[in-house]
Amino acid sequence: MRAELVTIGDEILIGQTINTNAAWIGEQFSLLGITLQRTITISDIREAILDTLEDCRRRADIVIITGGLGPTKDDLTKPTLCEYFNTKLVMNTAVLAKIEAYFKSVNRPMLEVNTNQALLPESCRVLPNDYGTASGMWFEKENTIFVSLPGVPYEMKALMENEVLPLISQRFNLQPVYYRSLLTQGIGESFLADIIKDWEIDIRNKGLGLAYLPSPGIVKLRISGNEADAAGSRQKVENALTELEKLIPEYVFGYDKDKLEEVVGKLLNEKGLTVSTAESCTGGYIAHLITSVSGSSSYFKGSVVSYANEVKQEQLGVNPADLAQHGAVSREVVEQMAAGVRNLLKTDYAIATSGIAGPDGGTEDKPVGTVWIAVSGPNGVFSGMYAMGNNRERNIRKSALMGLFLLRKQVMEDC
Amino acid sequence: MRAELVTIGDEILIGQTINTNAAWIGEQFSLLGITLQRTITISDIREAILDTLEDCRRRADIVIITGGLGPTKDDLTKPTLCEYFNTKLVMNTAVLAKIEAYFKSVNRPMLEVNTNQALLPESCRVLPNDYGTASGMWFEKENTIFVSLPGVPYEMKALMENEVLPLISQRFNLQPVYYRSLLTQGIGESFLADIIKDWEIDIRNKGLGLAYLPSPGIVKLRISGNEADAAGSRQKVENALTELEKLIPEYVFGYDKDKLEEVVGKLLNEKGLTVSTAESCTGGYIAHLITSVSGSSSYFKGSVVSYANEVKQEQLGVNPADLAQHGAVSREVVEQMAAGVRNLLKTDYAIATSGIAGPDGGTEDKPVGTVWIAVSGPNGVFSGMYAMGNNRERNIRKSALMGLFLLRKQVMEDC
Repeated sequence: MRAELVTIGDEILIGQTINTNAAWIGEQFSLLGITLQRTITISDIREAILDTLEDCRRRADIVIITGGLGPTKDDLTKPTLCEYFNTKLVMNTAVLAKIEAYFKSVNRPMLEVNTNQALLPESCRVLPNDYGTASGMWFEKENTIFVSLPGVPYEMKALMENEVLPLISQRFNLQPVYYRSLLTQGIGESFLADIIKDWEIDIRNKGLGLAYLPSPGIVKLRISGNEADAAGSRQKVENALTELEKLIPEYVFGYDKDKLEEVVGKLLNEKGLTVSTAESCTGGYIAHLITSVSGSSSYFKGSVVSYANEVKQEQLGVNPADLAQHGAVSREVVEQMAAGVRNLLKTDYAIATSGIAGPDGGTEDKPVGTVWIAVSGPNGVFSGMYAMGNNRERNIRKSALMGLFLLRKQVMEDC
Repeated sequence: MRAELVTIGDEILIGQTINTNAAWIGEQFSLLGITLQRTITISDIREAILDTLEDCRRRADIVIITGGLGPTKDDLTKPTLCEYFNTKLVMNTAVLAKIEAYFKSVNRPMLEVNTNQALLPESCRVLPNDYGTASGMWFEKENTIFVSLPGVPYEMKALMENEVLPLISQRFNLQPVYYRSLLTQGIGESFLADIIKDWEIDIRNKGLGLAYLPSPGIVKLRISGNEADAAGSRQKVENALTELEKLIPEYVFGYDKDKLEEVVGKLLNEKGLTVSTAESCTGGYIAHLITSVSGSSSYFKGSVVSYANEVKQEQLGVNPADLAQHGAVSREVVEQMAAGVRNLLKTDYAIATSGIAGPDGGTEDKPVGTVWIAVSGPNGVFSGMYAMGNNRERNIRKSALMGLFLLRKQVMEDC
């Protein structure tokens, strides 16, 4: 089953709107075992639409078209679809009644453009839209199915879930490919690749696939089943995942859609532990990540963001002599910050950061990206120095994720 | 000038990654006067790449290719590019030296896959990547320019801004449509539309365009010149901007690409003032926004993230009786938090937040999204209550932006 997606809309091409529909449809198809082999975004121009539909028909079994429908946009897309499918617009009385009922329910006058939304191609199967006035349309042409849907995400999603995906599943005997992902922290893509290279060769020989999906501080390793043997590869994927985890246990923090801040939160909750943070270079971002998780108030008490050295001394009790001698970006200071905030806010654990986020402030000894991170807990304070690179935003995010990762490691060692 | 974009990557097609690069590139091209007429996403399969490049060559003057590069991905895309452009991979010693220097600077061993990143097509112009190890590549074939860039967004953006867009601008006589944007805070899109409706009719009659670009807490109003008279509409756009600003002065905080945290930072810097924050529901996100700006250490001293009530009492000096009587989400508590942190960290101003971020914790009196925000300064403490809606992430961001907006307003009134 090969699918293609055509998105119609200038607002996507000029970058006013990010095409989130494409990712959502890609994920739904992938889970069902349909290969979305291509997505194309075009302008709402007759020739572009006709060319693209014909091109897609030659390549795909299913073509989803989103956008170009709606009261102010209907003029072009619907007549062009009629031209391509060799049909004409006719008034659909059932759809008209539904649109009239909608306008009555919201007590607004109905305009001619709204009436025109019930004009639909004679040859299509009309898919009812429960959240808007633009209907979905299902066409077939020379063994290819074409489905035209409105571009408004929640209308498109409801039509896909309630109409399109069930119809496709009924029609075809689909074999979804099985996927699992392992989430790693604290190691770069190429180092990971080197450690796991024998395992990778082995799973590829078994017909499985592997993708490296890096983002700042995190590399996701996705194992995919054999497309030719979708049903039989589930166990192979699970075995490969187990083997992979044994190769790199110290870097793994979760699976699939897990987030590090959620994994850490769950761990603290289970153990009945609390945490606080003392942040210099991360500037409150660790506290933000922790509190982005609903329910974090049960394990997070608070944070002292100590950007100024006087805050490090006065609130966190950092020794002024150490600040003077070693500088704010040092083992001595970051460990005192961690111990200080743990004591001040009376928590079981604390994370502290002090570093040079950049782009300015680096020296030869301590270049931009040098970050000290400490974790303080019932068994003492542990710290390390990291080189986080020279991009401020990434530097802050990588340092925060490393702080959470070190906390998780320490809690697991202690408990 | 007709451009097309080819994105290579299964992670995009199966919906694991949203293609934000496409929107960014579309916007850059649109601002330069280049029409992005089509974007195509394909899998990293040799035949798909070759077919797509040839198809794009027939249609476009410029083809941007993103993705398919990087230490673990190079195997396929680079040889396929060599095949299409009839060239071969050669070791680029300058790029190799740069990659070696990078690994030396971060004190990590260099692997063979990293060395291979310096293998580049002989016929291309190599575009240096300052943020990663995958170089950009510029090819030309039968009057079409092809540029291959890594898919990592910040690497792609830096290469576009520093190399690709300047080269394109030098080569072609582009007639960009003139755009200006006004940035507003604290008012919704439909309310704005109602206030400015007569002005909007007037500028549309003059041939100008207007787009409402909403994001959580902020609405950007973009005025665009007449495409048919790109050079002549500059003054019309500037006049329209001036008129618009006069209609809604209390909601405007900046222009074009300004960020509220940068605008506020600049203001504090100019006036020689300092700020701190006391954050409950925003959980450190205001501190994070402030410290995301390089140089913020000159006006930001720190923050007390007081998630637990005991931190509000013990660190910020909030009266336990007020906490008990009015609850943490109240005028009394948020004003004491603001005054408390201003006093504790000895700053000129302070922002405090206390609210119900959701999705749980709401009551009939104080539903999810209820947020109190206070600003404390030399002339006293001022606060307000806001309904920020029931999405936790949006709620935190909107509250933080409102806090910064209120601080800016107060500083401007005081000075």
